[in-house]
Amino acid sequence: MTDIASMNRVLWAIPNVLCLVGSRAGEEMNAMTASWVTQLAMDPVLVGVSVDATSVTHRLITDGRVFSVNLWDRADTRVFVKFSKPAAREGDSLNGRPIRQGATGVPILEEAVAFLECRVVHTLDLGSHTLFVGEVVECGFRVGGEDVPVARVEDTRMKYGGVLRGR
Amino acid sequence: MTDIASMNRVLWAIPNVLCLVGSRAGEEMNAMTASWVTQLAMDPVLVGVSVDATSVTHRLITDGRVFSVNLWDRADTRVFVKFSKPAAREGDSLNGRPIRQGATGVPILEEAVAFLECRVVHTLDLGSHTLFVGEVVECGFRVGGEDVPVARVEDTRMKYGGVLRGR
Repeated sequence: MTDIASMNRVLWAIPNVLCLVGSRAGEEMNAMTASWVTQLAMDPVLVGVSVDATSVTHRLITDGRVFSVNLWDRADTRVFVKFSKPAAREGDSLNGRPIRQGATGVPILEEAVAFLECRVVHTLDLGSHTLFVGEVVECGFRVGGEDVPVARVEDTRMKYGGVLRGR
Repeated sequence: MTDIASMNRVLWAIPNVLCLVGSRAGEEMNAMTASWVTQLAMDPVLVGVSVDATSVTHRLITDGRVFSVNLWDRADTRVFVKFSKPAAREGDSLNGRPIRQGATGVPILEEAVAFLECRVVHTLDLGSHTLFVGEVVECGFRVGGEDVPVARVEDTRMKYGGVLRGR
């Protein structure tokens, strides 16, 4: 068996996006930094996000059955540290970042380079995390967003993933 | 609803790895270019690959219940075009690239910057594609691999994903 330190380094070598996942159940909203996000199918068009089972976002997606993926400008990575904890909502903002509500009511960050709004069609319990698979309801770029390089994990000093700490 | 051309552009904006997924059932082996690959859980350590339901790799993973993820040097992207079609096996090579067999018998490409060998624990039918979720059995870097930048979709002119063509 591979030792934990080596396994962490290999897992961290898989390039991933760094984005914000928006969620909502009833009047409760959140947005959370996430990196395990990818398209999963073309017909139907499905996107997956795997989320820590202990997180607020996990509870909100489980209850609300919707999520948004907000791709971000790689020049503005401060946002990811801020959204590593539950977000503070004030009116039409989360952590001071302006939001609007999508067709499903899920928060979409106005500053996102691009967004995907998804309705959950599959939920897969994977132990420490749950994979939510959503069908894309709406998506788009903000004005000028198509020309903005999208943030990836490598743009920060964050290292998400690897083996659960404490094992 | 978002039009198909816009949806394609947003989906293509999600940064993904570009790698080779190795598979085997009985004596039949393959390796295939793939980009919908990410870690999905930390406990257990799970990695997901979503694979075209019509592909040879899909049949081999379905039957063999194992796969390997081979991260690649971004300076050598020719390999990805070659492995977009079923690979030709000759002795200990696929498409002329040397392989070895992992603990599960799955082919691992000797030139890979890093590899993850996985045993399938969940299979999720998503229509055009199937998500295979594998528990990591072994993983590691090749000598010097830790210092090599890993290939991503953006390193090529390939655009995988978006809406299924012909819809």
